[in-house]
Amino acid sequence: MCRWLAYSGSPIRLEELLVKRDRSLIDQSLHARQGATPTNGDGFGVGWYEGVATPRLYRSTHPAWNDRNLRELAAGISSPLFFAHIRASTGTAIQETNTHPFRYGRWLWMHNGLIREFPRVKRELVLAVDDSLFPSIEGTSDSETMFFLALTFGLETDPVTAVAQMVGFVEETGHKHGVDHPIQMTVATTDGRSVWAFRYSSERDSRSLYFSTRMDTLRALYPESKELAELSDETRVIVSEPLGDLPGVWNEVPESHVGIVQQGADELRPFIRR
Amino acid sequence: MCRWLAYSGSPIRLEELLVKRDRSLIDQSLHARQGATPTNGDGFGVGWYEGVATPRLYRSTHPAWNDRNLRELAAGISSPLFFAHIRASTGTAIQETNTHPFRYGRWLWMHNGLIREFPRVKRELVLAVDDSLFPSIEGTSDSETMFFLALTFGLETDPVTAVAQMVGFVEETGHKHGVDHPIQMTVATTDGRSVWAFRYSSERDSRSLYFSTRMDTLRALYPESKELAELSDETRVIVSEPLGDLPGVWNEVPESHVGIVQQGADELRPFIRR
Amino acid sequence: MCRWLAYSGSPIRLEELLVKRDRSLIDQSLHARQGATPTNGDGFGVGWYEGVATPRLYRSTHPAWNDRNLRELAAGISSPLFFAHIRASTGTAIQETNTHPFRYGRWLWMHNGLIREFPRVKRELVLAVDDSLFPSIEGTSDSETMFFLALTFGLETDPVTAVAQMVGFVEETGHKHGVDHPIQMTVATTDGRSVWAFRYSSERDSRSLYFSTRMDTLRALYPESKELAELSDETRVIVSEPLGDLPGVWNEVPESHVGIVQQGADELRPFIRR
Amino acid sequence: MCRWLAYSGSPIRLEELLVKRDRSLIDQSLHARQGATPTNGDGFGVGWYEGVATPRLYRSTHPAWNDRNLRELAAGISSPLFFAHIRASTGTAIQETNTHPFRYGRWLWMHNGLIREFPRVKRELVLAVDDSLFPSIEGTSDSETMFFLALTFGLETDPVTAVAQMVGFVEETGHKHGVDHPIQMTVATTDGRSVWAFRYSSERDSRSLYFSTRMDTLRALYPESKELAELSDETRVIVSEPLGDLPGVWNEVPESHVGIVQQGADELRPFIRR
Repeated sequence: MCRWLAYSGSPIRLEELLVKRDRSLIDQSLHARQGATPTNGDGFGVGWYEGVATPRLYRSTHPAWNDRNLRELAAGISSPLFFAHIRASTGTAIQETNTHPFRYGRWLWMHNGLIREFPRVKRELVLAVDDSLFPSIEGTSDSETMFFLALTFGLETDPVTAVAQMVGFVEETGHKHGVDHPIQMTVATTDGRSVWAFRYSSERDSRSLYFSTRMDTLRALYPESKELAELSDETRVIVSEPLGDLPGVWNEVPESHVGIVQQGADELRPFIRR
Repeated sequence: MCRWLAYSGSPIRLEELLVKRDRSLIDQSLHARQGATPTNGDGFGVGWYEGVATPRLYRSTHPAWNDRNLRELAAGISSPLFFAHIRASTGTAIQETNTHPFRYGRWLWMHNGLIREFPRVKRELVLAVDDSLFPSIEGTSDSETMFFLALTFGLETDPVTAVAQMVGFVEETGHKHGVDHPIQMTVATTDGRSVWAFRYSSERDSRSLYFSTRMDTLRALYPESKELAELSDETRVIVSEPLGDLPGVWNEVPESHVGIVQQGADELRPFIRR
Repeated sequence: MCRWLAYSGSPIRLEELLVKRDRSLIDQSLHARQGATPTNGDGFGVGWYEGVATPRLYRSTHPAWNDRNLRELAAGISSPLFFAHIRASTGTAIQETNTHPFRYGRWLWMHNGLIREFPRVKRELVLAVDDSLFPSIEGTSDSETMFFLALTFGLETDPVTAVAQMVGFVEETGHKHGVDHPIQMTVATTDGRSVWAFRYSSERDSRSLYFSTRMDTLRALYPESKELAELSDETRVIVSEPLGDLPGVWNEVPESHVGIVQQGADELRPFIRR
Repeated sequence: MCRWLAYSGSPIRLEELLVKRDRSLIDQSLHARQGATPTNGDGFGVGWYEGVATPRLYRSTHPAWNDRNLRELAAGISSPLFFAHIRASTGTAIQETNTHPFRYGRWLWMHNGLIREFPRVKRELVLAVDDSLFPSIEGTSDSETMFFLALTFGLETDPVTAVAQMVGFVEETGHKHGVDHPIQMTVATTDGRSVWAFRYSSERDSRSLYFSTRMDTLRALYPESKELAELSDETRVIVSEPLGDLPGVWNEVPESHVGIVQQGADELRPFIRR
């Protein structure tokens, strides 16, 4: 449905991952290989951090492959932590406010998948969003609703639990309305320091999700690579589908798991809805 | 904030009122004279009927004055009943789904004005929208919320009462949140047969609204006009501000009144919130 | 590179061919089967006639599959002769003025293919455009340049000869600059009465082009079809690739041929560059 | 017709001049005071340098006042030298390739004004563009044509002479076609180090142009200003019309003059066409 990419580590130009390489994200906007749809042409977005402040957003309804501004910005902007997303709408309108990543304060959120029968359950889900958060909802998509539910359930203090509760609530609500498999998702969220990446679906058949191998291991594998030599040990990339074909770089996130990129050792653990 | 125009009568090319004359609606998009803002460049929309079916919509986020497609379509489309609107956003996002007219089934709705402190009261207003209507909300604007509240209160069966209840509900909700003058509006709505045009504001200082003089009277005034000769007696135009400067053509809708263009005699009567 | 469709015959709603059927043109914008590229998401355009006047144009840089206005208009507009085109840019900018069909007076023009090494030969080609036509060039594409060259060579009086001269001139110019196969094209052009469809390429390996079987033959094949029963004998559709899978409907235009849909018997004859 | 701003000096966030202050450039997009038109809503562009490389461009056809991405980028990007432009089209199409600033290699160019009767003289002007530069023309505007003529006449080696020759050639060509006052312009151009700003018109009645007072003088005038204290002595701003109302800040560029912001002392001298 969509494709996305989360980067955390040594500051790099966005174009390194969005534009330059074979099977870059822009390349995937025209012909993804593992997605539900090969074309992801319903807009795109980039969110990036500089220092610890609020992240910046650039979002557009144009296809990523033909947006000149995206190439200019990707060449001009360096960041140690950024999210990028290309959209294939599952029904909600093509407009910037439905384009990922979504932002709330220091947080970013992006999603591949859908809430099934969203028009049927939307009202109930939206009503559960906290009063103080409600005015910040800008769009009309299922993905943004998931974000605001997660915020309501405490994303800012305990992300894994909050997302687990959000999933539980969406499933419960869906089941009440007779929806068999209410949610399908790979989700990334960040506060500008750590990144959480979730792979989950009600039917236990989630969209693909990969994380990159530790840089020290990769450098041992490819001692001659100048590109890898420049990246810090902590550098990680999480993607809907692999960028490039280098063996040993990409590891699949297992079904119903969450990966956490953070200070110290990264984590990969089972994710259970609440 | 916005400017709009409702036409009902002998089928004419849309361009007659949108493009051709001095102070046409496109002209008003660049320099309105009576509006809260001279520029109405945050998108536009046209809704028109052919026969009794669902109306067609063309809406865009471009300024009306520089949209080539609008000129092509206005030249190509004839209709006996159409709405046209140029937008100056009061804060909600610039996107097609926030662009007037809004459509539900056979109904169109457009609005000039605002719900004051909308972010503060939005949740409560949206929650009052009927369950069955909720999934049809596509945008995030105050104007569309007013439409769906009016639909909830029975717009399709008794438009004047439904709008009166909507206004009452918005005012009540606003007052609860400490908003002094919760609503400011000129609104037009139609089912493809009749047109209802409301002028109302909590502070009793509503935006301007005009309706055209009866065609038989106008023809007596201007016996030489070929243009007027071709229009049926029932033809009426309702506008935020006059198109052109012909004396005797335009009559102000009084404060807190509703005008009804319909089969048989048209009506103009006081409008009281419920 | 692109896909297009030309319709001539009994007036029909544009949506019949653009939206409704399996493998409609909108469907081909997301996944063409026979094109050089499966995705044609760099804008689209529709040009249609009503009576004998200047055709109307609706062109947009959005992908056809996600443009709501296109669906509205295709449902609202009937025409006895229309062109529709979905674009996959071969390098020139994504902007309405580079979107097909192009219009000059009563004429429309659309193209699938390219002039090879266009930046190298553009200056020489553009300079050959007639003085009086030059100011009407609005965009920067190879396809529009072909149109204005054909107009310079007399498209309005003898279309086949004019296109043959245009092709000859483009090939000559390309060869002078060392381009092996200067032109690749399927082109449709019309004056609102007849339609000319060309299939040609310097390398004699042209993009696909199909025309529909005579309606009387089709009705004999499918006597039960209500849809076919309503179309006049003269109705013809010419397409880059077949719409739908009905056997017997589609005939390939042979390499280096031109088809002419006109009053009286249609023609299909060899096309030789001059 | 348009409004523009050129900044050179201590690196600052673009938003300082584009967004934040009263009468910022975004503010002028809705209500310019000294322009030929109060509304400049036909797109905008920003070009900025980092180091000595090629400048980056962000250009859009949206009105500047309602483009969210512009605010994000203006907040995210710092630069010691940038150009910003808001457009009011004088007739050529609303598309990114007609939006200023234009770029060629390390050079930027932006313009307020017009070539009168451009459709009539365009062919002759465009044909004078050097063969090697011709393929880099991306749009169709008079302003871009002026840029490529100036490049043809040696902008990269002697900017003042090249612009003088360009003006002379445009005037000569106009006169040949019976145009009384062929050119009206305020133009800024830069190679990323110096900035040249021209004020000229055939009728000697040029659009307004201002440059800021030397920073040391301003600091003496306003010793308490923290904002001014942080800017280097060399910092200069050149604008179509003043930003803000501080007395002593803005000096008018005299009719038929060129101002040069450069290493060492800046210059202001008469500009004579060749």
